[in-house]
Amino acid sequence: MATPVKVHGPPLSTAVSRVLACLIEKDVQFQLIPVNMSKGEHKSPDFLKIQPFGQVPAFQDESTSLFESRAICRYVCEKYAEKGNKGLYGSNPLAKASIDQWLEAEGQSFNPPSSVLVFQLAFAPRMKIKQDQSLINQNHDKLAKVLEVYEKRLGESRFLAGDEFSLADLSHLPNTHYLVNATDRGELFTSKKNVGRWWAEISSRDSWKKVVDMQKHSS
Amino acid sequence: MATPVKVHGPPLSTAVSRVLACLIEKDVQFQLIPVNMSKGEHKSPDFLKIQPFGQVPAFQDESTSLFESRAICRYVCEKYAEKGNKGLYGSNPLAKASIDQWLEAEGQSFNPPSSVLVFQLAFAPRMKIKQDQSLINQNHDKLAKVLEVYEKRLGESRFLAGDEFSLADLSHLPNTHYLVNATDRGELFTSKKNVGRWWAEISSRDSWKKVVDMQKHSS
Repeated sequence: MATPVKVHGPPLSTAVSRVLACLIEKDVQFQLIPVNMSKGEHKSPDFLKIQPFGQVPAFQDESTSLFESRAICRYVCEKYAEKGNKGLYGSNPLAKASIDQWLEAEGQSFNPPSSVLVFQLAFAPRMKIKQDQSLINQNHDKLAKVLEVYEKRLGESRFLAGDEFSLADLSHLPNTHYLVNATDRGELFTSKKNVGRWWAEISSRDSWKKVVDMQKHSS
Repeated sequence: MATPVKVHGPPLSTAVSRVLACLIEKDVQFQLIPVNMSKGEHKSPDFLKIQPFGQVPAFQDESTSLFESRAICRYVCEKYAEKGNKGLYGSNPLAKASIDQWLEAEGQSFNPPSSVLVFQLAFAPRMKIKQDQSLINQNHDKLAKVLEVYEKRLGESRFLAGDEFSLADLSHLPNTHYLVNATDRGELFTSKKNVGRWWAEISSRDSWKKVVDMQKHSS
C-alpha cells in the first residue's frame, strides 16, 4: 500500500481544490493537511521550506515536494499514469499538446480576471474588505471576452481540448464554481449555449461533487 | 528534410521570443511569419482561425496548430525530444516536475508584474501612451518580492529547476531582457548576488543572443 500523498492547504482555496479534483479523478489517495491562513501559517518558516512563495497548496509525495497547482496536476497525471482517469492528460502527444494549450489559456487568460472577480465578489464581503467597483467592471469585461472565445470553441468541440474531459476543463472548475454559485456573475456562463452546456457537464462529475462536499465541511 | 515549423508573430513580442529561444535551443528549423499588429493583422479572421484569442504567437507544425507560448515550448521539447538540447524539459519525471513547477512560477508569479513593467516602462513611451505610475509602483513591489524568493532558490541551485539550464530559466529571458536593457529597473536583477549571476549566465547563451539579434533586425 503506497503512502498517501499530502496536500497542504484549505479546500476552499481555488488552487487547492484544483489539485484535489485531479487527485480524485486519478484515484490517488491523499491526506489533506490544514493550513490556517488567517493565523499566517502559510508564511511560517516550516511552510516556506516546501512553498517558498508562501501560498497554498504545497504538495508532497514521499521525498518529492512541489508547488503551483497546475504543475502538481501535471505531475500527478504523469506519475500515476496507470491509475484512475487515464485520459486526463491525454493518451498521445497531440492530445497532450492540445490539453497544455488550453491549460495555459486557463492560467494566462481565464484565471486572471476570474480570480479577481471571485475575490472581489465572493470573498471580500465575507472578509469585510471594501469592493473595488472599477476593478470588478474591468475584469468582468475581460472575462466576457475570454468566454466569447470559449463559446466558439465549445461549439466545435465537446470539451476544451477535444472530445474527452481533461485537465484543461478540470482547471476551470474552482473559479467557475464560485462565480456561478457565490456571485451574481453566473450568467456569464449559464446564459451561453455551449459554455452553459460544458459547465453543466463538467461540474456534475463525481470528482468535483466530492471536492464541493469537502469545501462545505471545511471552515 | 522536414518542413520547417512556422511561428507567426514579431520577435519583439516577449511570447514570440520565448518560442524562438526554445526552437533554437532544440535546433528545430523554423520559418518566421510576420504579423503586422499595428495594422491589426492579429485580429483578422484568418489569424483567429489559428489563434482564437487574437494574440501572438501562433505556431504550426505540418497539420498541428498551437497557441500559448509555454504550451508551444512544451510541445517542441516533447516532439523533438532527440534534437538539440535534450535536457531542456528534463530527462526524467522528477526533473520534469521541477521544471514544470518553476515554469508555472514564471507564468503565474513572475510574468504578471514583469509584463506590466515592460509595457509601462519600455513600450508605452515609444507608443506615446501615458504611463500609470501607481501601476508601476505596485508591480515593482510585487516583482521585488518574487525576486527575493528567486534569490534564495538560486543560492541553493545553479538554475531554477536544478543543476541544468531548462525551459523554466528560458521562459524568463524575454521579460528580463527588456527590464534589464530597456528600463531603469535592471538593478532588481543585477544588484542581487545569485539572481545577477543567473541572469548573466542565461542571457549569454548563444540561443538567446540569436533571438536578440533577430529583435534588432525586426521593426
